[in-house]
Amino acid sequence: MDTEMGRRPIGVFDSGVGGLTVLKELIRQLPNERYVYFGDMARTPYGTKSKQTVTRFSKQIASFLQSQGVKAIVIACNTASAVALEDIERDFDLPVIGVVKPGAKTAADTTNSGHIGLIGTEACISSGIYESYLQTYRPDVRLTGRACPLFVSLVEEGCIEDPVTTEIARRYLSAFKDTDIDTIIMGCTHFPMIEDTIQRVAGENVRLVNPAYETAKETKILLKENDLLNTEDIPLDEEAYRFYVSDAPERFRRIADLFLPLSISGAKQIHIEDY
Amino acid sequence: MDTEMGRRPIGVFDSGVGGLTVLKELIRQLPNERYVYFGDMARTPYGTKSKQTVTRFSKQIASFLQSQGVKAIVIACNTASAVALEDIERDFDLPVIGVVKPGAKTAADTTNSGHIGLIGTEACISSGIYESYLQTYRPDVRLTGRACPLFVSLVEEGCIEDPVTTEIARRYLSAFKDTDIDTIIMGCTHFPMIEDTIQRVAGENVRLVNPAYETAKETKILLKENDLLNTEDIPLDEEAYRFYVSDAPERFRRIADLFLPLSISGAKQIHIEDY
Repeated sequence: MDTEMGRRPIGVFDSGVGGLTVLKELIRQLPNERYVYFGDMARTPYGTKSKQTVTRFSKQIASFLQSQGVKAIVIACNTASAVALEDIERDFDLPVIGVVKPGAKTAADTTNSGHIGLIGTEACISSGIYESYLQTYRPDVRLTGRACPLFVSLVEEGCIEDPVTTEIARRYLSAFKDTDIDTIIMGCTHFPMIEDTIQRVAGENVRLVNPAYETAKETKILLKENDLLNTEDIPLDEEAYRFYVSDAPERFRRIADLFLPLSISGAKQIHIEDY
Repeated sequence: MDTEMGRRPIGVFDSGVGGLTVLKELIRQLPNERYVYFGDMARTPYGTKSKQTVTRFSKQIASFLQSQGVKAIVIACNTASAVALEDIERDFDLPVIGVVKPGAKTAADTTNSGHIGLIGTEACISSGIYESYLQTYRPDVRLTGRACPLFVSLVEEGCIEDPVTTEIARRYLSAFKDTDIDTIIMGCTHFPMIEDTIQRVAGENVRLVNPAYETAKETKILLKENDLLNTEDIPLDEEAYRFYVSDAPERFRRIADLFLPLSISGAKQIHIEDY
């Protein structure tokens, strides 16, 4: 193994705090790795914005992460994975992993009925990207999508176990009632925070897929293939996990506390438009 | 009157669609004016972002509006008015009107008890700007603020007359229950869209202040003072009302239909970071 390369951090980015659910899973499955996380708090959310704008933002972030010497990039944002993955793969000479492909693969492996539900942001649903990945794994699979934009605000407001969140979940998931959907992809990194509510409303016969888990698994495989896995123990100091944001860090820190059992007191603000 | 100057449009901007409630009131009170509206859809919302970031965004927009030859700027966004008005007044040689000052003035004139409630975004409440304006009008007035971030998402999702919106309003406004607050400032341009719900929950003895109305009144006075009022009839063609956005216009057009009884089919996308 190339030790110098292996010691480099993995770059992880999201439109804001949601990607921390993916980082958490990465740290769990790849505890010997260093991480640089970027949250685009100045321009969050991405889920209501166009493909062209989200791609432009994502490429600036990939440039920034490259400038930080990362050995691979994990796009921990469904919207950015859905619309910008191919552009980043083409323009950057680094292994790139998005959350969509692993989520689609697990869903295809999970469903018995062949009918899958997808909940996510407007941009992610309308991109059609989950359909196209699902097609490559199982051409017979059908997908029914439902945009759930209010879930993001509710999670960020801390309405985790809350009758309002349950009522909104009932409305959103009514699109899947009386169908043969047996698997629902949580196509937004915020949604695992309200997984219990979604599961309760969807019913116990429906299996929820959290792409973060499969993404971490695929990241491990990709690093191994590229001889980039770090096998040495790392000291868990401030250098191990570095956090950057595009806005003042206070709000990021505050909401991050909901998502991550880690202190992120050292989040630094950078000027992302310069990348 | 300087006719050439008078014919120039008024620049109006907001972080997104909310400022359309102000534009609507401007058109009603100043029907002989041309308007250029900018909605920062690529970076919306502002209400959860820092003073420094919102000021930077607002100055780019003021530059853009100046490049469009506007004769005055109306900041139709409470957050931007709260944090960026002084910087724009200092850096641009144009009359500038924000929504905060007129709203504060009306509230000070309205309250009998001397205790005012303020609902708005996190950034607007924590800026303390309403307090400082209120102090100049009536030093004896007390203000109690409550950030209501979910209202924005609920309005944009079309939850206008909705039990969920009522329940959220009950939680937010509980901060004002059993107090002598007799006046509530709707310190966010989205909120007049759910004015009926807010009024019902607040009770009939509470007076709601919509800053858009007073802002349009003050704009008229300011234009008169600067000899900039247009008194000629204008043809209501595409040139009379021009709309610009920083993201693909589809979503703006769609939500704008909720806000404005006007066709805005001609919204154009520009690259706001270049200004």
